[in-house]
Amino acid sequence: MSSTATDTTDRSSAPAPAAAPITDEEIFAGHVAGKLRVELAAPLDTQRDLSIAYTPGVAQVSRAIAADETLAKRYTWTDRLVVVVSDGSAVLGLGDIGPRASLPVMEGKSALFKAFAGLDSIPLVLDTQNPDEIVETLVRLRPSFGAVNLEDISAPRCFEIERRVADALDCPVMHDDQHGTAIVVLAALMGAARVQGRDLTGARVVISGAGAAGIACANILLAAGITDVTVLDSRGIVSRERTDLTPVKTDLAARTNPAGRAGTLADALHGADVFIGVSAGTVPENLVATMADDAIVFALSNPDPEIHPDIARRHAAIVATGRSDFPNQINNVLAFPGVFNGALDAGARRITERMKLAAAHAIVSVVEAELAPDKIVPSPLDPRVAPAVAAAVAAAAADVTG
Amino acid sequence: MSSTATDTTDRSSAPAPAAAPITDEEIFAGHVAGKLRVELAAPLDTQRDLSIAYTPGVAQVSRAIAADETLAKRYTWTDRLVVVVSDGSAVLGLGDIGPRASLPVMEGKSALFKAFAGLDSIPLVLDTQNPDEIVETLVRLRPSFGAVNLEDISAPRCFEIERRVADALDCPVMHDDQHGTAIVVLAALMGAARVQGRDLTGARVVISGAGAAGIACANILLAAGITDVTVLDSRGIVSRERTDLTPVKTDLAARTNPAGRAGTLADALHGADVFIGVSAGTVPENLVATMADDAIVFALSNPDPEIHPDIARRHAAIVATGRSDFPNQINNVLAFPGVFNGALDAGARRITERMKLAAAHAIVSVVEAELAPDKIVPSPLDPRVAPAVAAAVAAAAADVTG
Repeated sequence: MSSTATDTTDRSSAPAPAAAPITDEEIFAGHVAGKLRVELAAPLDTQRDLSIAYTPGVAQVSRAIAADETLAKRYTWTDRLVVVVSDGSAVLGLGDIGPRASLPVMEGKSALFKAFAGLDSIPLVLDTQNPDEIVETLVRLRPSFGAVNLEDISAPRCFEIERRVADALDCPVMHDDQHGTAIVVLAALMGAARVQGRDLTGARVVISGAGAAGIACANILLAAGITDVTVLDSRGIVSRERTDLTPVKTDLAARTNPAGRAGTLADALHGADVFIGVSAGTVPENLVATMADDAIVFALSNPDPEIHPDIARRHAAIVATGRSDFPNQINNVLAFPGVFNGALDAGARRITERMKLAAAHAIVSVVEAELAPDKIVPSPLDPRVAPAVAAAVAAAAADVTG
Repeated sequence: MSSTATDTTDRSSAPAPAAAPITDEEIFAGHVAGKLRVELAAPLDTQRDLSIAYTPGVAQVSRAIAADETLAKRYTWTDRLVVVVSDGSAVLGLGDIGPRASLPVMEGKSALFKAFAGLDSIPLVLDTQNPDEIVETLVRLRPSFGAVNLEDISAPRCFEIERRVADALDCPVMHDDQHGTAIVVLAALMGAARVQGRDLTGARVVISGAGAAGIACANILLAAGITDVTVLDSRGIVSRERTDLTPVKTDLAARTNPAGRAGTLADALHGADVFIGVSAGTVPENLVATMADDAIVFALSNPDPEIHPDIARRHAAIVATGRSDFPNQINNVLAFPGVFNGALDAGARRITERMKLAAAHAIVSVVEAELAPDKIVPSPLDPRVAPAVAAAVAAAAADVTG
């Protein structure tokens, strides 16, 4: 998860009082010996169990796979095993804290795969930040897993690494900080548009932040047919006139900002319909006040949104954050469990733009009948979401690969 | 496991009739979707659970590990996670069948770690057989695990790979085909010697097979104080006079065969006290007949012992095989779960000769009071073995590292 769009602070549906603060003691106690365990699919108690699962029986299965390697999908756990891979270079809002310190986050991610989609998942953290070495390591490990969730890898390395890993491996690969965020943002934007009865394609959208999440959001909104998307980095509006852009941002400039705007966030926001903050920056109230009527504000930085939702609501019709203690929580967990489950169900070799769009549609469809200004997306704990996303993603994959 | 010393054919202590044959259908059904699952250490059902295990709580733990990396041992699952690593180059008796076909064996091994020692374990199979690349891959993955069980890697590559991985990583590393076999062979030999009331150190021992298992057996017997050990490869007795030896066998020749014998198995076995077969060859009855009185024969090739135990018993006082359908089954599972558990309990950075010797002593000590010609080692299913081995190995590790 990125530092945006993933906070899940205490909006408890549990029996415990929602207001009871979580103590450090409780957090550390919950992490002793880690959060994952390996268990046996069937007991190994008798000599007969051993003879089936181990020697001599296992030789039959190995021999069958040696004769037909595709049988590994059927007779091993790897077909539905997602590896959560990080180099620890951009962990939460903590930055480049390294692979060991990233492990609790990766274990949490693997736990979410299990809890929300029933997928087995293990963290693999790498003691290298060299893109060549990361790609090479995953290529060597390819027979050990069924899909790769890249996580908390810093921009712009993450773009190259994701592209190269996806090209090198014949299995689903997704950098969740990019696409998990983007899918849920698009779902929320579709939810908001339906509440307002407006057509999104004509909306003028401003994205603050040109890192992993910001660029992926821009891409998915363009793919969804929104034409007027403008992105800002720390130096202002990304435009074709800028001479200080990285190759990734140069590419972005060619596809966004059709009006050729230049300047600051104030210039971008004036008259805009939608603001999406994934920058860990701040947005003054007076700028939100200059947005168009019925403005939509997604202030997704965690733990501190770009603008407090209560303040944003003075000027915007719909407000969302990444936090669980406000309405409209935009959280990646709405997307990645179902996306990987659907891709693996379909035997997909790639996660395509079409599958991501299908995921966004499925997320909002779950709350179609409940849509309201304070309910533009399902709760992260809504058990209907992952199966709906998986089914939609599998169908979208089958359209292409089937 | 090697092709020796690991068969576990049906000597069932289960309610099912011991003689009921295991069908292919049963074996393949037992492998659908693989034999391992990842489970959560604690439920993730409520917003509060999520806030502890995932964001925002997890950031506290990541921050703590970033400040003190040793805390990863305490707050992640990696400290007691054994990776079972293979390149599929020497799988069971099937040979070089590749990483995908080796997977069912590696899953079985991981399952045994859980069932016998409670250790979490995952298989990592590598799509390379290049020693440099295997070592490099494990070095890059180092933060992801607590120990490495190398498995089914062909000789002589296995010697170099084990040495280099153990040197490169600060954690327990063991190639089980070598040392698991050797530990259990030594345990069985000690059990046999006690049954016979003889001192092993003066015994003349012949080992047929100079691969991974044979060389490791020679080494542990030498370490245990047996001075007259002679090893044979496919060309005969390994001696200093041979000019066709690999570097590994040249080293072996310098440390074994003190009488400077030359020739064939017939020359070696004449008057020998102990025969250990780990060669997948055969031994004619007339050669066993030339061994010393009270001979000990371990015919460990699987599924076909070098000589049928019923025939060997005409000339030998004590006979053992790798099979579960004869008495005295010599099976690696008596060693590796406890060895790794003890090494991890002690926080050991290496698995030393001292720890391996302690494991062998612990195995035989479990059946000290039950020793008989047909019970020189515990049953592979004996639940007393792994804890006894773990305690002995941890104590031996503490002697060095504590």
